[in-house]
Amino acid sequence: MVRNSNRRSKVVRKKLDILRGAAAAFRARGFDGAGMRDIARGLGVAPGALYYYFRSKDELLYFCQDYSLDHLLEVGRRVSGARLSADRKLAALVREQVRTMLDELQGSSAHVEFHGLPPRLLRRVVAKRDQYEAIVRGIIGEGIRTGTFRKVDAKLAALVVLGAVNWTVRWYRPEGSLTAEVIGGQFADLLVRGLVK
Amino acid sequence: MVRNSNRRSKVVRKKLDILRGAAAAFRARGFDGAGMRDIARGLGVAPGALYYYFRSKDELLYFCQDYSLDHLLEVGRRVSGARLSADRKLAALVREQVRTMLDELQGSSAHVEFHGLPPRLLRRVVAKRDQYEAIVRGIIGEGIRTGTFRKVDAKLAALVVLGAVNWTVRWYRPEGSLTAEVIGGQFADLLVRGLVK
Repeated sequence: MVRNSNRRSKVVRKKLDILRGAAAAFRARGFDGAGMRDIARGLGVAPGALYYYFRSKDELLYFCQDYSLDHLLEVGRRVSGARLSADRKLAALVREQVRTMLDELQGSSAHVEFHGLPPRLLRRVVAKRDQYEAIVRGIIGEGIRTGTFRKVDAKLAALVVLGAVNWTVRWYRPEGSLTAEVIGGQFADLLVRGLVK
Repeated sequence: MVRNSNRRSKVVRKKLDILRGAAAAFRARGFDGAGMRDIARGLGVAPGALYYYFRSKDELLYFCQDYSLDHLLEVGRRVSGARLSADRKLAALVREQVRTMLDELQGSSAHVEFHGLPPRLLRRVVAKRDQYEAIVRGIIGEGIRTGTFRKVDAKLAALVVLGAVNWTVRWYRPEGSLTAEVIGGQFADLLVRGLVK
């Protein structure tokens, strides 16, 4: 059993490496413009080596979404249940989402492009996205109830937060001067400040 | 001359009608998933009628970007030069961008999908996007200088604003209960409030 789980985590690590490498190809050609061959070329491996881990771009896309959403849901639930005020919860979650998207996935636009998925996989991803959005909305709602936040529309406020954060994959460059930590810190500050009384 | 310009504006109006109609096909299938035939079917016209106005999806995409950016640049320059405080300028610009994207273009994701464009057209669109971003950044910088806004990184703050607004095309539904006006008003409030001292 230990051996199996070790091997599984090794495969996951390898898949994450590929995902990070693929991010550059997506940036250069757009998610739809970059084929499996471009991704393999960018990684410096033969297409066959890539197909060993992902049989198609859909599989790569699904893995990226599923992996990052599982992680964000776990963090979201932990932060949500922590003994913190709502403004601190929201700031922590924004920072962690930026870190996940820009550091761990290297700003891969695969995180936000999910229209291409086959219906069965798309439904699973959309369900997890809805859960994550509900967590963000829940923290904002809590802040409104406890008087930390102004009386705003929690749904629209959550969409402001998620939109600003998701959009980072459209302009972030790992080789640029801004680190994920700096971006996450400033985003958390600006977005939370817009809500506090 | 009058006749020519009338005909031109009639063509532009017709093209805008098509763009609004195409938005529904993009929402249902994603921008890359929707072909010219899907767009024509959604509009209830023969593909030939569609090809009369746009020879390809690239042309439709370019027209959408170019038209909306020209309009936003004009509004941006006017708002930027107005005798208003920076917070009012930014609020006005956010409201107008939301209105343009969600009302005038019916939340068409063609406004934000531009990776597919051929290099020559892509360069023009990117140049106009850069100009618009510079206007938003300029208003934020002005607010910092005049003491209306806190001392934040104007570049990152502009990206928070533009990200939240651009992301609306991913979730907006014209048949939903939220109007572009309500969304624009709440977004302006939340985003400007994050900046004020």
